[in-house]
Amino acid sequence: MQNQIIVAFKKIVGDEHVLTNKEDLLCYSYDATPGYSHMPDVVISPGNTAEVSQVLALANKEKIPVYPRGSGTNLSAGTVPMKGGIVLLMTRFREIIEIDAANLVAVAEPGVVVSNLNKAVEEFGLIYPPDPGTVATATLGGTVSENAGGLRGLKYGVSKHYVMGLEVVLADGRVIHCGGKNVKDVAGYDLTKLFTGAEGTLGVITKITVKLVPAPETKKAMMAIFSKLDNAGNAISAIIASKVIPATLEIMDNATIRTVEDYAHVGLPVNAEAVLLIEVDGIAEVVEKEAAKVIEVLKANKADDIQVAKDAAQRDRIWAARRAALPALAKLRPTTFVEDATVPRSKVPDMIRAVNNAAAKHKVTIGTFGHAGDGNMHPTIVCDLRNQEEMIRVHKAMDDIFAAAIALGGTLSGEHGIGLGKLPYMKDQFGADGMNVMQTIKKALDPNCILNSGKLVGEC
Amino acid sequence: MQNQIIVAFKKIVGDEHVLTNKEDLLCYSYDATPGYSHMPDVVISPGNTAEVSQVLALANKEKIPVYPRGSGTNLSAGTVPMKGGIVLLMTRFREIIEIDAANLVAVAEPGVVVSNLNKAVEEFGLIYPPDPGTVATATLGGTVSENAGGLRGLKYGVSKHYVMGLEVVLADGRVIHCGGKNVKDVAGYDLTKLFTGAEGTLGVITKITVKLVPAPETKKAMMAIFSKLDNAGNAISAIIASKVIPATLEIMDNATIRTVEDYAHVGLPVNAEAVLLIEVDGIAEVVEKEAAKVIEVLKANKADDIQVAKDAAQRDRIWAARRAALPALAKLRPTTFVEDATVPRSKVPDMIRAVNNAAAKHKVTIGTFGHAGDGNMHPTIVCDLRNQEEMIRVHKAMDDIFAAAIALGGTLSGEHGIGLGKLPYMKDQFGADGMNVMQTIKKALDPNCILNSGKLVGEC
Repeated sequence: MQNQIIVAFKKIVGDEHVLTNKEDLLCYSYDATPGYSHMPDVVISPGNTAEVSQVLALANKEKIPVYPRGSGTNLSAGTVPMKGGIVLLMTRFREIIEIDAANLVAVAEPGVVVSNLNKAVEEFGLIYPPDPGTVATATLGGTVSENAGGLRGLKYGVSKHYVMGLEVVLADGRVIHCGGKNVKDVAGYDLTKLFTGAEGTLGVITKITVKLVPAPETKKAMMAIFSKLDNAGNAISAIIASKVIPATLEIMDNATIRTVEDYAHVGLPVNAEAVLLIEVDGIAEVVEKEAAKVIEVLKANKADDIQVAKDAAQRDRIWAARRAALPALAKLRPTTFVEDATVPRSKVPDMIRAVNNAAAKHKVTIGTFGHAGDGNMHPTIVCDLRNQEEMIRVHKAMDDIFAAAIALGGTLSGEHGIGLGKLPYMKDQFGADGMNVMQTIKKALDPNCILNSGKLVGEC
Repeated sequence: MQNQIIVAFKKIVGDEHVLTNKEDLLCYSYDATPGYSHMPDVVISPGNTAEVSQVLALANKEKIPVYPRGSGTNLSAGTVPMKGGIVLLMTRFREIIEIDAANLVAVAEPGVVVSNLNKAVEEFGLIYPPDPGTVATATLGGTVSENAGGLRGLKYGVSKHYVMGLEVVLADGRVIHCGGKNVKDVAGYDLTKLFTGAEGTLGVITKITVKLVPAPETKKAMMAIFSKLDNAGNAISAIIASKVIPATLEIMDNATIRTVEDYAHVGLPVNAEAVLLIEVDGIAEVVEKEAAKVIEVLKANKADDIQVAKDAAQRDRIWAARRAALPALAKLRPTTFVEDATVPRSKVPDMIRAVNNAAAKHKVTIGTFGHAGDGNMHPTIVCDLRNQEEMIRVHKAMDDIFAAAIALGGTLSGEHGIGLGKLPYMKDQFGADGMNVMQTIKKALDPNCILNSGKLVGEC
């Protein structure tokens, strides 16, 4: 990048907010996704919307790639600057502008850490439901752009279900506003939803209005052990068919159970084909009634054992087992790929079997756990990125997993986004015409293709 | 339209599905919106997706405007063929393809009447929540394209909150599929939400996957009378702030109360400034608890009288009063404009005052009722379309109403769509850049601007 352009960026945001030292740039050359890294030319950290607008206008004029970034916790290489250019660091946007309890909304800047937003709204008896595993470090802007989900997705959905309004800077620097505090708002195209989950390829989000919901009065957690995977699968569908929508309905397969037990010694049955972890929430009367119904369904579907948490300590122990799944699997080998192939919930057992077949066929280690209630599985492949022969097998296993998800009526991503990791499979899901529609929208809104160039919809 | 083109359309869909007689065309020259009509050149009624594709491919080649239409019940002139051309009548698409109770979804064709879908899913103990007043005649495709809402919007949202997947024929005849049965699906741009509520300007919907929810076990309705509007407004906000989200929370202003009482003699207090009509639903324990809390809040906010329905007959009487609002107002004068300006719920009293000021200033008759809980008001202007002088005053009053909604952080449309009726105000809400973004998307996906040409985003 020419020095005079760097000087121009420094004039816009101030010298101290433009990083060009190699050791600084290195920190922004990768994110939480294994296998992708590239050095940016510059890291620019704007302080307000007007600065973002000026930076983008100049970048657009000079056709410099721009990679918006929060904390870089995403799992699809969404923030890696693969073509160099600018990493646009949004972490200075850290103000919670308003908590409007009467309208059940909050307005915040994209650099606010999600758990900080949740702490702030808790005082009003409210919650912001999306809770990815990275909630303590991930930013609101990143989670909205990646459409992050979490453990409560079954009952509460993913980020897009909570984004009500946005301020967005377009590729050429123009600033638009869409949506707002209105519960019902059907005026015009749903630009709010278009920019949400667009992974920074259509614009840079500078302000976010989110929906809040009343915090549940109480919760009840339980664990059910199944010697047969199919019984667990049937139980998942039967719980929903009984009209109970638990806040959380998680599954761990045998490989995950063995690994967690070996790692954390929490007393999991290592011969079980599946364990379900369930939590219902709401007002006390509902929680008791729903918990009773869930237990009835679990028994009817041949759960070998059901443990209901009687107090907070027992509840914590159940969720500790689930939280141990990823670190336990990650400890097995140097590299961890956490995928998020998702299927309609009735297809969860088919999907787990397909993952196990892929693991056997390609001789790779895969533990599967995840959000069974919403069909959002996390087949987790542990391997060593430095072993090229193994990586070929890993990618063949991924091919099989994503093909199975699509064949079962599923989707490539339930909550992690597409980025680069899943880009090769997009055409399989959307077809050539579907991809062309997305690329047409991308080119219409970002004619020079400067925004997160090459991601989500590929080259344009 | 040249005869050889008519012949070509007849070859695609069959002679009997192409109407060209003047008396037939006349039936499709208008919809439920007063003040807009134009004769189409031809009405084409395709029977399947392939036929829609061929019709659009030919229309696109010949640059003939195409106006997709269901039952024509919309209130924003969304289906009026203002440039002639083709009315594409989708009522032959009337199959409910699948009800998948395990995944809580239904797949249906766009010509299915909404109440028929509801009857079909009722057998599974499920509901499809969007329930516009026209539910017994409106089609699923029309309500999805217009993003229709209804009385349950506060708790259950509008159509877009239930559309999970679509099959869409693009302007050039290509067919794409987006979304599906997955509860969590974040792959790619949210095309499903983009085509939902696009009022047929971006593509023709040929198949719809919708989310269903368990039917509430029980319901409780009540009516509260307020001598002061501000107390009613405070009660609305206080109910939500108390963490109760009623299924329905309606308001009628004094003008509406007087008109309804004069029309239906249901015992409404004609001097009250406002009446709130409230229904909570869910499992019995929750309904009792929430109803008690609502009553407590109503008392604390100085309701003069509270009537709780003790049985189904009393419940029906409460809702009969609300249902009488529109016909009672409509009976006053030959022409009725039902608007749907929407504001954040805390601004409802301000909005009602603004409507009353507009009525007084421009000497027009406006009754306001609507979905107070979600801020979605229905200022209803009764007048005579044939009186040009009066119509000038009516439009000035509308200008004031929409300006007030936008100034209060609201939106032009909570559930009726933009069409032509509210198009002149779009720039006030979205700004020139926001409108440009929408027009850019329209042009990118429909370069010849054949689809519902001139609506929603204007000329292109």
